[in-house]
Amino acid sequence: MTRVDLREQVREANAALLTAGLVTLSFGNASGVDRAAGVMFIKPSGVPYDRLRAGDLVAVDLQTGASGDGSSRPSSDTPTHLALYRRYPEIGGVVHTHSSWASAWAQVGRSIPCFGTTHADHFRGPIPITRPLTEAELGASYEADTGKVVIETLDGLALAPLEMPAVLVRSHGPFTFGADANDAVANAIALEAVAAMAYRTLALEPEAGPISEALLERHFGRKHGPGAYYGQPDRDG
Amino acid sequence: MTRVDLREQVREANAALLTAGLVTLSFGNASGVDRAAGVMFIKPSGVPYDRLRAGDLVAVDLQTGASGDGSSRPSSDTPTHLALYRRYPEIGGVVHTHSSWASAWAQVGRSIPCFGTTHADHFRGPIPITRPLTEAELGASYEADTGKVVIETLDGLALAPLEMPAVLVRSHGPFTFGADANDAVANAIALEAVAAMAYRTLALEPEAGPISEALLERHFGRKHGPGAYYGQPDRDG
Amino acid sequence: MTRVDLREQVREANAALLTAGLVTLSFGNASGVDRAAGVMFIKPSGVPYDRLRAGDLVAVDLQTGASGDGSSRPSSDTPTHLALYRRYPEIGGVVHTHSSWASAWAQVGRSIPCFGTTHADHFRGPIPITRPLTEAELGASYEADTGKVVIETLDGLALAPLEMPAVLVRSHGPFTFGADANDAVANAIALEAVAAMAYRTLALEPEAGPISEALLERHFGRKHGPGAYYGQPDRDG
Amino acid sequence: MTRVDLREQVREANAALLTAGLVTLSFGNASGVDRAAGVMFIKPSGVPYDRLRAGDLVAVDLQTGASGDGSSRPSSDTPTHLALYRRYPEIGGVVHTHSSWASAWAQVGRSIPCFGTTHADHFRGPIPITRPLTEAELGASYEADTGKVVIETLDGLALAPLEMPAVLVRSHGPFTFGADANDAVANAIALEAVAAMAYRTLALEPEAGPISEALLERHFGRKHGPGAYYGQPDRDG
Repeated sequence: MTRVDLREQVREANAALLTAGLVTLSFGNASGVDRAAGVMFIKPSGVPYDRLRAGDLVAVDLQTGASGDGSSRPSSDTPTHLALYRRYPEIGGVVHTHSSWASAWAQVGRSIPCFGTTHADHFRGPIPITRPLTEAELGASYEADTGKVVIETLDGLALAPLEMPAVLVRSHGPFTFGADANDAVANAIALEAVAAMAYRTLALEPEAGPISEALLERHFGRKHGPGAYYGQPDRDG
Repeated sequence: MTRVDLREQVREANAALLTAGLVTLSFGNASGVDRAAGVMFIKPSGVPYDRLRAGDLVAVDLQTGASGDGSSRPSSDTPTHLALYRRYPEIGGVVHTHSSWASAWAQVGRSIPCFGTTHADHFRGPIPITRPLTEAELGASYEADTGKVVIETLDGLALAPLEMPAVLVRSHGPFTFGADANDAVANAIALEAVAAMAYRTLALEPEAGPISEALLERHFGRKHGPGAYYGQPDRDG
Repeated sequence: MTRVDLREQVREANAALLTAGLVTLSFGNASGVDRAAGVMFIKPSGVPYDRLRAGDLVAVDLQTGASGDGSSRPSSDTPTHLALYRRYPEIGGVVHTHSSWASAWAQVGRSIPCFGTTHADHFRGPIPITRPLTEAELGASYEADTGKVVIETLDGLALAPLEMPAVLVRSHGPFTFGADANDAVANAIALEAVAAMAYRTLALEPEAGPISEALLERHFGRKHGPGAYYGQPDRDG
Repeated sequence: MTRVDLREQVREANAALLTAGLVTLSFGNASGVDRAAGVMFIKPSGVPYDRLRAGDLVAVDLQTGASGDGSSRPSSDTPTHLALYRRYPEIGGVVHTHSSWASAWAQVGRSIPCFGTTHADHFRGPIPITRPLTEAELGASYEADTGKVVIETLDGLALAPLEMPAVLVRSHGPFTFGADANDAVANAIALEAVAAMAYRTLALEPEAGPISEALLERHFGRKHGPGAYYGQPDRDG
């Protein structure tokens, strides 16, 4: 993929956040990475999703965090995105939103149990939630520290990031990832759908329990990994 | 109806799932059957609803399950659709979704009580839910076994499939059916509306009970069967 | 207003039910009356809202209930509309829907308390709910009997119909009325908004109580009656 | 900004209330002020949002409350808007809605706790709620008295109006403010999102508590005040 194509893909990913109803005002951002060039493209801070042009995306150096392009300031969440790309080489896209259902779970401080196959089709277990940041972590490197606690949470699971491509930041909202920016958006959409269903499941039955490991593995395996048979042979996802 | 018309009808049915808000990403599919030719047309796996062309639908042999057309892989839920068409000759269309409200009930593992006339206009009693699949049924013939438990559930009722054109697969989501693909979509839409109202009914009054048999029969009979007087004389539904 | 204008107004009213999200499939209908001619215009049964043309509306004789136009069958709820027009000469339009929030209240069998000024701006007290119909009332004159219990309910209040232009039919859904068909639609929209807010009010506080009579009268009086000062002097509502 | 530009901005702000789903029928209004000229522009009463032209806005004298333009009657909430502009010179725009989630909190009579960073990004603490108006305050100067209790509530906080640009009027709905009309609309949108999330937070966990002061200050400070680093250097918000 050329740098031009990647810019266009990241623009589309940001626009898709709006179309999918995951963002309000400017609460959220999508990025994509060009590993060969060592560059991440991310939404500029505070710009409306529907007016974003590919050329408006800010190029940020993956190692230094410097934004070379000059004109625009990248999303204030840039250090969180960088931390995730640096730690997980298999990630090609990152999305952050304050989507309403997933953020309600984040505000409650609870992981989202796997109550059904919609969840299992996308996430190989409960959606984890970070610990609270300490007061020190709310300082000058707050956004990098947010990335640190997301990584701590993911590293504490016996799963690869693309097996659990979503983490709730406590009292805040979700970060999702994917093989590329579009895939990270799809995971953000799936997460929001799953968060709404899980809320309603508990409202109907406060004692509801998770599905069996066998059903979870059956569904996750239909769409992911060597035995996947969902979608067309020549494409992903 | 010619084979060309049926393809177009099934394309429209799949597109209508998106328009009606019943599907997110690619969670769901609609099919229709040509009984004379012994062929079912179904959505290809993982293809977006709004880009689907009539020619993209996959033709599947009703008896053998083989997809003759070559190019695309049919929906991974194909064996469930086939099982339903084989068992119930009066069914002309099948729909599967993970629609949010109906799936919440499926996740809770509870049938949806008939709390009002919106429900009774479409379904002649509570919407049934399947038993859980056994671990053995989660194996290689999982989707066919899903069809088997849907049939088990329907056969356990004293109702014809078009009197109860919806079943919740436990921990998963709904399958609906109809005289044709459009009718199966209409039942999926009605089910989602009914599932939302039933949730809110219980939230307002946890002890809410079902409507009387007399009211249920009055409403179901207005729209279905020999005494129906809803709609125009020259059309269905 | 000419008969042509009235047909067009009733067509718009039916289309507005769809736009406002109050109807799904074909669950609902709007009508308007020409008192001088003694004719009601109503939606034909089972026809999609967005394809309805003014000429499709069915003219029904207010006294005899006969539909003179010939071709289409009027809405199956026609006898309910007729009963309301016959009893209340000040009503010019009637709407019936199965809108989701109002129908949940109808399914619970509870009137909607006046919890705030949005409610008081449109309805001069709690939205009443009918008694259940008896088994005998579920017979051949079911729809006329539905009108009868709506009237019984309204007549039991110390309010004029345009002061309480909405009644919930128990286990069913709302009927609303107005000075004309557009006004009846506006009341159906207001009712649905109020029903949703009241549900959420009780969810946050199960012991929530109604607003004071003084606040209710202040708001209702801003928009209705001799002291109204809402809107422009040359128009209604 | 010229008077023509301000009219256009206030027209857009009113139209945005509809697009954002904050208003139903004609429940709500936006205004903007020209401090130099001492004139407020506000929506005419009862006019649909999507047909409003810039020329339809009513000019109201900030001191006298007289509407000079002649033809249209300003929103019935005009005295509330005037009271806010007179008391707080830093406010350039005011919005009133009956948005569904925020109004449910108003109907319950409870302030909205700060449960997460979406809230903290926009509001520096819980969203306050007014006391009930006394019976005397429901008289001829009801709308001015509504302004008075909003001011009483804001003045009781140790915060500037642009630090807490939203107040819930008890049993009624929200007023929001901003540096200009667009900013007041953005605050109304943020408030509605926050009100929905807070409702869901309490539904999942009735004992949920607010976020720490440190996290609140970190997020509010990212977007507001001297240390803000959100958005582009050359713009607000």
